Amino acid sequence: MDALHSLTLGDLLRENRRRFPLRTAGVCGGERWTYPELDERVNRLANALLGAGFEPGDRVLWLGQNCHRLFECLFAVAKIGGIVVPANWRQTAAELAFQIEDVDARVVIWQDEEIGDAVREARSSVSSAARWLQHDVPNADGPNTEGRRDDSYEEFIATGAPDDPDIDVDPFSGVLAIYTAAFGGRPNGALLSHFGFILENLTVAMLQHLDSDAIYLNSGPLFHVGSFMTTMATFQQGGTNVFMARFDAEEFCRLVDAERCTTGYVVGNIMDRVVEVNRDGQYDLTSLRLPGTPEWNAMVSAESTPWSRNAGGYGQTEVNGLVTFRGIGGDHEGTHGRTLPLAQLRIVDEDDHELGPGEVGEIVVRGPTAMVGYLHRPEINEHRQRGGWHHTFDLGRREIDGSITFIGPMTTMIKSGVENIYPAEVEAAIARHAGVAEVCVIGVPDAEWDQCVKAVVVAVAGVEVTDHDIIEHCKRNIASYKKPRSVEFTDALPRDVNGMVDRNAVDAAFGGGGYPGPKRTRG
Amino acid sequence: MDALHSLTLGDLLRENRRRFPLRTAGVCGGERWTYPELDERVNRLANALLGAGFEPGDRVLWLGQNCHRLFECLFAVAKIGGIVVPANWRQTAAELAFQIEDVDARVVIWQDEEIGDAVREARSSVSSAARWLQHDVPNADGPNTEGRRDDSYEEFIATGAPDDPDIDVDPFSGVLAIYTAAFGGRPNGALLSHFGFILENLTVAMLQHLDSDAIYLNSGPLFHVGSFMTTMATFQQGGTNVFMARFDAEEFCRLVDAERCTTGYVVGNIMDRVVEVNRDGQYDLTSLRLPGTPEWNAMVSAESTPWSRNAGGYGQTEVNGLVTFRGIGGDHEGTHGRTLPLAQLRIVDEDDHELGPGEVGEIVVRGPTAMVGYLHRPEINEHRQRGGWHHTFDLGRREIDGSITFIGPMTTMIKSGVENIYPAEVEAAIARHAGVAEVCVIGVPDAEWDQCVKAVVVAVAGVEVTDHDIIEHCKRNIASYKKPRSVEFTDALPRDVNGMVDRNAVDAAFGGGGYPGPKRTRG
Repeated sequence: MDALHSLTLGDLLRENRRRFPLRTAGVCGGERWTYPELDERVNRLANALLGAGFEPGDRVLWLGQNCHRLFECLFAVAKIGGIVVPANWRQTAAELAFQIEDVDARVVIWQDEEIGDAVREARSSVSSAARWLQHDVPNADGPNTEGRRDDSYEEFIATGAPDDPDIDVDPFSGVLAIYTAAFGGRPNGALLSHFGFILENLTVAMLQHLDSDAIYLNSGPLFHVGSFMTTMATFQQGGTNVFMARFDAEEFCRLVDAERCTTGYVVGNIMDRVVEVNRDGQYDLTSLRLPGTPEWNAMVSAESTPWSRNAGGYGQTEVNGLVTFRGIGGDHEGTHGRTLPLAQLRIVDEDDHELGPGEVGEIVVRGPTAMVGYLHRPEINEHRQRGGWHHTFDLGRREIDGSITFIGPMTTMIKSGVENIYPAEVEAAIARHAGVAEVCVIGVPDAEWDQCVKAVVVAVAGVEVTDHDIIEHCKRNIASYKKPRSVEFTDALPRDVNGMVDRNAVDAAFGGGGYPGPKRTRG
Repeated sequence: MDALHSLTLGDLLRENRRRFPLRTAGVCGGERWTYPELDERVNRLANALLGAGFEPGDRVLWLGQNCHRLFECLFAVAKIGGIVVPANWRQTAAELAFQIEDVDARVVIWQDEEIGDAVREARSSVSSAARWLQHDVPNADGPNTEGRRDDSYEEFIATGAPDDPDIDVDPFSGVLAIYTAAFGGRPNGALLSHFGFILENLTVAMLQHLDSDAIYLNSGPLFHVGSFMTTMATFQQGGTNVFMARFDAEEFCRLVDAERCTTGYVVGNIMDRVVEVNRDGQYDLTSLRLPGTPEWNAMVSAESTPWSRNAGGYGQTEVNGLVTFRGIGGDHEGTHGRTLPLAQLRIVDEDDHELGPGEVGEIVVRGPTAMVGYLHRPEINEHRQRGGWHHTFDLGRREIDGSITFIGPMTTMIKSGVENIYPAEVEAAIARHAGVAEVCVIGVPDAEWDQCVKAVVVAVAGVEVTDHDIIEHCKRNIASYKKPRSVEFTDALPRDVNGMVDRNAVDAAFGGGGYPGPKRTRG
């Protein structure tokens, strides 16, 4: 990539500093930074990282909730060819420990608030050569609970010079890794490139009609690409990002009112919770332009955009989020609309031959928005990217009118609220319990969350084990949202002719169902 | 560029074939083609070109007016790594001859209608090894005036197989060359890449709020990037392009009415001419969504978009059109708004050091939308792209609020209507007249066209030459719009201390003025 035609996330920040010198880039905890101020803090962090021995391809692992400092980390690593990994902070100590080892970061930035115990436990269980920084203390000048002393983020950043490091970075190199896809029992970090992220986010800005007046409340978790894409679309248009550590309906209302936010991450039951909190109208939410339910619309200034008219589509983290969208391309037969302007999508058979309309096959995707690959997974990458197309492990069908129907994951997945839960991952956790001989995890329909998790367990002969034991064991080992809500014991799991657990038979016998997509096609 | 992350114009057409199989891609002369039909014709043309020995980097020169076949040529060369060059059909035979030699095309496609005489004269004056095809006859089965026999475009395309040639093409390679920038007396072909063109056009689609319902009337010339960008934005969104050979107010109205066009290329006095033709309301123009004058708005369905609210900005062909735009980024002090989301722009001094707000310097631009370079001009390219930034030869200033004021070209240019006229080019033509000893071409203010061209001539002693002679000479040698409207004779041109013609003194003495930008800064 020659220098003339390059465009990285660092370049976008440099340009925003030039074109929007007076505009507010970020607001967090009552503090606010203009674009030049943001850029200067980013330069200091980048230079401090270089001083700590950071090299191209190195990682910064973020073990914290939403914060402007994560936003700064993204741009700082972008300017020096590195990668930032925002961890899911709801993970257990065991899951965090896995991720600390898997990411193998040069620098880990952690927070004490709400997740400190899990972080400390994880840290104590692994050997990490990383430089650890705590971000949520202005001056971490005391020893932490293990007797170690971490510099604070702010102390660290103060050691860096304010000048742009001015390093050439390949726009097709990875800059952000988001963990997902625990098909094999452990999640994998989908590595997204500068260019892919930029182009996807420009498309999002186009569909949401975002411009430099956009003020986005980061009410969704930044370890999800679905939330991060609007953060970046807002940034790319010269708008303002307002950060809140995690969703809270009262704080959401307070921030919208105080900062005149025009949009936010509003999915699932968030809208109802906000309406409930603001039933007395104490907060002015009229700056919000997102339409929704009648009660919501009565509080906001609903505006119609392609995004709001027919929201939703097909996508996954590995392709930077959305690939198809319902709100473009007019009417469509398919459930998930048509591919976005810069996306390329085919439906293929098991030999990668393209299928015609009406035929069900794997969805494969190509183009600049496809991930670089999973971090440290060369074999999986080779397999999933064979033939120059990213294989999604999802099944779909193209309709006669060219639109796409998403059928469901090829590997069984449970969808509980907005969370993807991989049975293999929960099964691996339960199987480590000494009282468990065999386990099959299924999804059962749930009125509030679409599905919830159920474990069907064969106990080790002669060992006393209860459903409570299994659930508590899970709470110690995997994120709480993945634990089974119910456990049922049985003498043996049904198996197919090959001796594999017959998941359809388990579903039939134990009430499984409601999986994403109209049918379960493969075990 | 690895295959997984690639995206070319050919890929966009392939994807539109998949996602919009039933939609009309193009309408021309009453005929219409769906996206699959367009793709099949493109494949046939691409395969026919390969059969004619076409290799990556080879050129197709289009000597014709607007037509769906030019659109097909763009995609056909895109699929096989070639370049299409749409010539300005208003050029004289001498100018066309220069371009035929300069482009050195593998295939030349020409039209007889309106420009046949100039094409034949140009062709007879140069040696061209190209395969020549005539596009505006269904079967060119007779000899042409020089006794040559050209196949027709349709005969040629019929020789190609309908299958996709399926060749890997670098998205950063050039695919379209548009001649411009005759600073040195001859124009240069700005070579635009797949990727640059695609990204610029996505931005245009975003600013115009174009979606798959867009029906664009190609009423502007496709040898101008300013017209072509909306053609492509419409294509990229899955909309419909309607082609007309050249602007004609009556035909404009008829096509809008018949095809329910939602937008068109409407600049300069086009709006007034359409209003005039449709004063009796015989044509239904309510499908048009572009706002304009009160009379115009009474005929159309005006819709507000960022594009229409505050149209205009700074740009040039070499950067794919617009780099800054008035309609984004809110209020701005600068005359030309702020840089587009994917653009990077600096104001620099003569040593390429970035200048601060309020200082006037050269505008330099960087990023994927910058041209690959001028066709066959390695030395100029090296100079203009030094340091990894494209040097625009234009002067600008950044204001305190980050917005840009365009000052004017560093090299004197006359702006007559929407046309850029380079004095050096007109002077070179006039100097070839046997009766001319010295000449200086200036722009003089003009009520209708902003400026018109005036030649100040020193005649060769003893030779009788009139203003009529000079103007007729120009009409034979350069496009009519470049010829002087008036010629004034003088005994000697004023010169500066270095012996160079003092253009400011010529302006002062002969009524020059009204140049683009508030002041003339360099000769």
